[in-house]
Amino acid sequence: MLISFEGIDGCGKSTQIELLKAYFKKNNISFSVFREPGGTEISEKIRNLLLHETDDMDPVTELLLFSAARSQLVTEEIKPRIKKGEIVVLDRFFDSTTAYQGYGRGSAELTQIEILNQLATHQTEPDVTFYLRIDPKEAAKRTKTAEKDRMEKAGERFFKKVREGYDKLSRLDRYEVLDATESPDEIHHKIIQRLSKELG
Amino acid sequence: MLISFEGIDGCGKSTQIELLKAYFKKNNISFSVFREPGGTEISEKIRNLLLHETDDMDPVTELLLFSAARSQLVTEEIKPRIKKGEIVVLDRFFDSTTAYQGYGRGSAELTQIEILNQLATHQTEPDVTFYLRIDPKEAAKRTKTAEKDRMEKAGERFFKKVREGYDKLSRLDRYEVLDATESPDEIHHKIIQRLSKELG
Repeated sequence: MLISFEGIDGCGKSTQIELLKAYFKKNNISFSVFREPGGTEISEKIRNLLLHETDDMDPVTELLLFSAARSQLVTEEIKPRIKKGEIVVLDRFFDSTTAYQGYGRGSAELTQIEILNQLATHQTEPDVTFYLRIDPKEAAKRTKTAEKDRMEKAGERFFKKVREGYDKLSRLDRYEVLDATESPDEIHHKIIQRLSKELG
Repeated sequence: MLISFEGIDGCGKSTQIELLKAYFKKNNISFSVFREPGGTEISEKIRNLLLHETDDMDPVTELLLFSAARSQLVTEEIKPRIKKGEIVVLDRFFDSTTAYQGYGRGSAELTQIEILNQLATHQTEPDVTFYLRIDPKEAAKRTKTAEKDRMEKAGERFFKKVREGYDKLSRLDRYEVLDATESPDEIHHKIIQRLSKELG
């Protein structure tokens, strides 16, 4: 089973992933968590390139490098684990590329990003996507200073466009939209409810 | 003006590029030559990744990394030089991806490769593509031992498929098909003829 978490920075993904990890551990359910870009030797090398070269890097180059790291993670880690029946949790997956690079930054046409995502994911889709929906202004209040700087730099308009992207994606059946202003425990409870339904 | 050279390994591209460079120098025509992947700091780093990691690397990851290196070369070097009116010569460009990864290896669907090439080239197309056409068996006879090993490993069937790919591409207006079994001087003469026509 493949589970992804999505939402704009400051939506509370990390908190929910921590709560879910604790739940899986308590119930002796084996799982893995991955955060992109990274998770394989090759993907980590691509991550280093992405982290140290952002100034001169063209947005399309960035998009392609991110997709390359994803492709390797999918074939080397995600697919084999799913095949063995493991639960894989992803802190962001290809929907982030659609929302951030497609809707937010406009690095490429949405149809181009769609093809790129198909390639990079080797047609792998999450069974459930938990989307923590929040107002960009509210999210900005919550984020740490470093992230806040990044968000202010990117601008409120940018994050509004990213949220619009997520809102469009959330029409997909695999999406579970969660109100990120509810308490962490309430949200966690809803996540467990949906997972129980999925796992039968 | 953007000029690309294409053809299977052993077709004589390098010889023709050397003859063209000598011609440009003799006639005081400024030009640059690029060979992929590489040509920018970021692209060279991607090149290192590609050269040192081929064993575990997924073919789609390879395709995406190659495209990322191309994207950076196009924005950082090719586009600005063409804008300044310089002549840029490419030892292989995106047609190699179509022929080798698309037709030869089948790393992705041709329609996916087409979109990927559009992204990586930022819609930049050569004005002329010199395609040195040769029978794979004949090409194998010419190549150095190292390349010969690679070709034998890849197999004759693979190179036949690559040539089929090039033959299909050669229907494009920008293609100048050259018989690679003619003498280097004869071929060079035809290249200069076509370029003179293009440059007026």
